[in-house]
Amino acid sequence: MIDQKDLEFIKNSLSFFSELDKDQQLSLQQAILKKEYVKGEIMQGGAQNCSGLFLIYSGQVRTYIISESGREITLYRLFDGDVCIFSASCMMKNISFDIYVEVEKDTQSFLIPTQALKRLSKNSLPVQSFINNIMALRFSEVVWIMEQALFTSFDKRLANFLIEQSIIDNSDILVITHEKIANHLGTAREVVSRMLKYFQNIGLVKLSRGSIEIIDKDKLEELV
Amino acid sequence: MIDQKDLEFIKNSLSFFSELDKDQQLSLQQAILKKEYVKGEIMQGGAQNCSGLFLIYSGQVRTYIISESGREITLYRLFDGDVCIFSASCMMKNISFDIYVEVEKDTQSFLIPTQALKRLSKNSLPVQSFINNIMALRFSEVVWIMEQALFTSFDKRLANFLIEQSIIDNSDILVITHEKIANHLGTAREVVSRMLKYFQNIGLVKLSRGSIEIIDKDKLEELV
Repeated sequence: MIDQKDLEFIKNSLSFFSELDKDQQLSLQQAILKKEYVKGEIMQGGAQNCSGLFLIYSGQVRTYIISESGREITLYRLFDGDVCIFSASCMMKNISFDIYVEVEKDTQSFLIPTQALKRLSKNSLPVQSFINNIMALRFSEVVWIMEQALFTSFDKRLANFLIEQSIIDNSDILVITHEKIANHLGTAREVVSRMLKYFQNIGLVKLSRGSIEIIDKDKLEELV
Repeated sequence: MIDQKDLEFIKNSLSFFSELDKDQQLSLQQAILKKEYVKGEIMQGGAQNCSGLFLIYSGQVRTYIISESGREITLYRLFDGDVCIFSASCMMKNISFDIYVEVEKDTQSFLIPTQALKRLSKNSLPVQSFINNIMALRFSEVVWIMEQALFTSFDKRLANFLIEQSIIDNSDILVITHEKIANHLGTAREVVSRMLKYFQNIGLVKLSRGSIEIIDKDKLEELV
């Protein structure tokens, strides 16, 4: 069960909460589950799996799609207070792709199970409108990713990824494999390794086994 | 003003219509406009423009995005009975990309102006739910396009485009420039021309000025 502190967090994060009537609020409170995940776990593994709406309390997850040949690309990441609706996509008409959610840092979350969410959204305009807004937000992020992948040269995309990652990790030393970066950016490992070596040659980064150190952040930012 | 026949079409296409109360139905009927467009016209030109929800009565349009450098990629096409909601994106929270809509065949449409749609969606759960379903449908189409663009080799994508286009045009002779195809597929004209020449060399198509004839449809389909 959730306690008073949890409830405050939920109320602040889910803008529709205050617009529900007393009965709806109570049944939602009773339905919400606390879920904890450790780094590396898959919270949502494609269409087979449809737990419900996740609200991240603390931690970090990434959502991605996988091609038939096994290639990945990251769509967006979720942090404290963010909401994942595609883990409830089985209740949504017309969603025909499978989204995967992987835990990047140990994560505490709240889950509104699909059945409870379905019941709510059927009868509540604020809930429908909330889902609408989240979907529009994710749609915009995916269009941005597509624009980047199609129209931006790979050196810029990689530089951008390294800068973002160093902000997220709050460190200039990134502990990440070339394979992982390739999965984020929807490309092959060799492409990442080649560009990183070039970055090292022109003095932007220093490569070590399993980590990448950003040496010249200003120049890296210029590239973006 | 719309007549009885128009109204029947609108009722059949917009599933929420029958769920509106009498007053809402009447005010919607009074707000709906008939709009005609000729081939080549831009129905929606980015964020500056936010006419409302279009329902295609007859014709064909394509929706696309444009990169900063001017490159295009087609997201999806709309035919008879289809609905375009991103021409009302100014009323939608969180939509941060600009969608363009170009008329490919002379098109007759109905327009629910943004103000009327906004009024309706504020008070109607069925309208919210309808918008939700359309957004999910487009989202799925865009994810599919992204998967294709990222993970599918260009020969397959081009073969797929030629087959689709010949179904849409109901002809094996496609009157289309290499530039146009490049804009659909988010690539450069040279890339299209090179691959088409290769297709000609292996006997799949015959190229003429301004048109492409499909010679061996079976082989083309095998490629896909």
